[in-house]
Amino acid sequence: MSTPGRFAPQDLHFEERIRASFARQKAMALIGASLGPVAAGRVEVRLPFRDELTQQKGYVHGGIVGMIADTACGYAAYSLMPASASLVTVEYKINILSPGRGDLAARGEVVKSGRSLTVARAEVYAGDVHVASMQQTLMMLADTPDSVE
Amino acid sequence: MSTPGRFAPQDLHFEERIRASFARQKAMALIGASLGPVAAGRVEVRLPFRDELTQQKGYVHGGIVGMIADTACGYAAYSLMPASASLVTVEYKINILSPGRGDLAARGEVVKSGRSLTVARAEVYAGDVHVASMQQTLMMLADTPDSVE
Amino acid sequence: MSTPGRFAPQDLHFEERIRASFARQKAMALIGASLGPVAAGRVEVRLPFRDELTQQKGYVHGGIVGMIADTACGYAAYSLMPASASLVTVEYKINILSPGRGDLAARGEVVKSGRSLTVARAEVYAGDVHVASMQQTLMMLADTPDSVE
Amino acid sequence: MSTPGRFAPQDLHFEERIRASFARQKAMALIGASLGPVAAGRVEVRLPFRDELTQQKGYVHGGIVGMIADTACGYAAYSLMPASASLVTVEYKINILSPGRGDLAARGEVVKSGRSLTVARAEVYAGDVHVASMQQTLMMLADTPDSVE
Repeated sequence: MSTPGRFAPQDLHFEERIRASFARQKAMALIGASLGPVAAGRVEVRLPFRDELTQQKGYVHGGIVGMIADTACGYAAYSLMPASASLVTVEYKINILSPGRGDLAARGEVVKSGRSLTVARAEVYAGDVHVASMQQTLMMLADTPDSVE
Repeated sequence: MSTPGRFAPQDLHFEERIRASFARQKAMALIGASLGPVAAGRVEVRLPFRDELTQQKGYVHGGIVGMIADTACGYAAYSLMPASASLVTVEYKINILSPGRGDLAARGEVVKSGRSLTVARAEVYAGDVHVASMQQTLMMLADTPDSVE
Repeated sequence: MSTPGRFAPQDLHFEERIRASFARQKAMALIGASLGPVAAGRVEVRLPFRDELTQQKGYVHGGIVGMIADTACGYAAYSLMPASASLVTVEYKINILSPGRGDLAARGEVVKSGRSLTVARAEVYAGDVHVASMQQTLMMLADTPDSVE
Repeated sequence: MSTPGRFAPQDLHFEERIRASFARQKAMALIGASLGPVAAGRVEVRLPFRDELTQQKGYVHGGIVGMIADTACGYAAYSLMPASASLVTVEYKINILSPGRGDLAARGEVVKSGRSLTVARAEVYAGDVHVASMQQTLMMLADTPDSVE
């Protein structure tokens, strides 16, 4: 799945654009997530473990695992879009493979980048443990600002 | 989908058990979610709008919409399980139907309660606006505490 | 979910259009499926049991259960589209709730009909037994013929 | 995703077992599908194009694409199970990436093989064209025959 360079970005400033967009996501600040490496079609989101992210059994809440996987997929898709576009999540499906213990990293990657729809996947890891797998559909909104209107 | 009384709880104290479990979820406190009505096979989770829940465009983050839908489905499933059991989310799929603006309510309902697997659905609303639809699979863990071990 | 009349068709001849489209689906003939009732936003596909539809244990193959649910959702969505449009399946997710024994009926219903994307659900029954639940996303192709080009 | 040898089969005769099970699937014969290479945790299902597999636009029906992906995932999972077990599909989610034109090959691979649940993925190709991506959950049934009871 990871042939380097198989995605051709339309906007060479995609990394700057993604980092600025991520910084506008207050929900990412709330959970303490940060952006890791950003490449064309591939983005990592990191989440250090914090007690306030847990569910009733002390693991990171499955919905929070979904949040970082959703965000990693979204920015992987966004990296291939023109600078004037924004995007929305159409839907996603996530399998929780192991309890989320410790620091998490969600690695999103584009599977197919179409004219309006993009399909992406993310894998969430806690160290070597495979915590979750997501498959997601996103839709590009042409000529729409990626900020509060 | 909503025939009252079509689910028979195995533990008559399910509401007490669910409210105690929800109170142990630090992630729900972090986002400001609370439990609404709890019935056998049907649970509502409420989330007042807060600026810190938003993504880059000012709407509630799709992953947070997923968090409350996941939790509503999970407790709907949990309401039908014996008091000695706990459960884990196997997977979920969510469609985002409209941007999440304003206060949200996620209503989870059991579709099928099997021996080990339960399928549930949740609808998320912001007032009259249908924000999201989830379909989820959960697995019962027999004789396993629903708390930090 | 089933408020009658909550969907307003754009083309009053939607039933005729759907029946003609279904008749062009050779795959439906191959498995012996037929169209049941057709209403705005709601379509039923029927599949009499045949030995040649089974998997290794003698139940209707889960993929064939998916085929009729996919088709029921698709035509439910199609019923609300203009006569000049066609549509494609973006993705679907299906839970198999019980083994498919006997004659099946898949009832598709639109959840949300948007400008380009529609979300629909289908329930598959064998008599009173709930066999499967699907949640699906479809995309309208404006001014595109619904036939072999 | 494809580290050779990362899966350890419990039954060294898994290929024989899978080929016998596939041969019992009348639905695979109906659509003309055959088994390609079989390895531990990885199975390919092939489907030559036939006019009777098409939907109204002349492409292979999305549900049939789902059938072969479902089957490829299922046998990938089955390859890692003990000889005395059988399995059922819990659910699957599939994205249709391109119209299915020509001969298809569905390559299934195990993502995580757990005690009772297995998560697998399949990619469907028509030559070099990526037609579909599936993510699936399966459940092992211990000491249950994989045949008509």
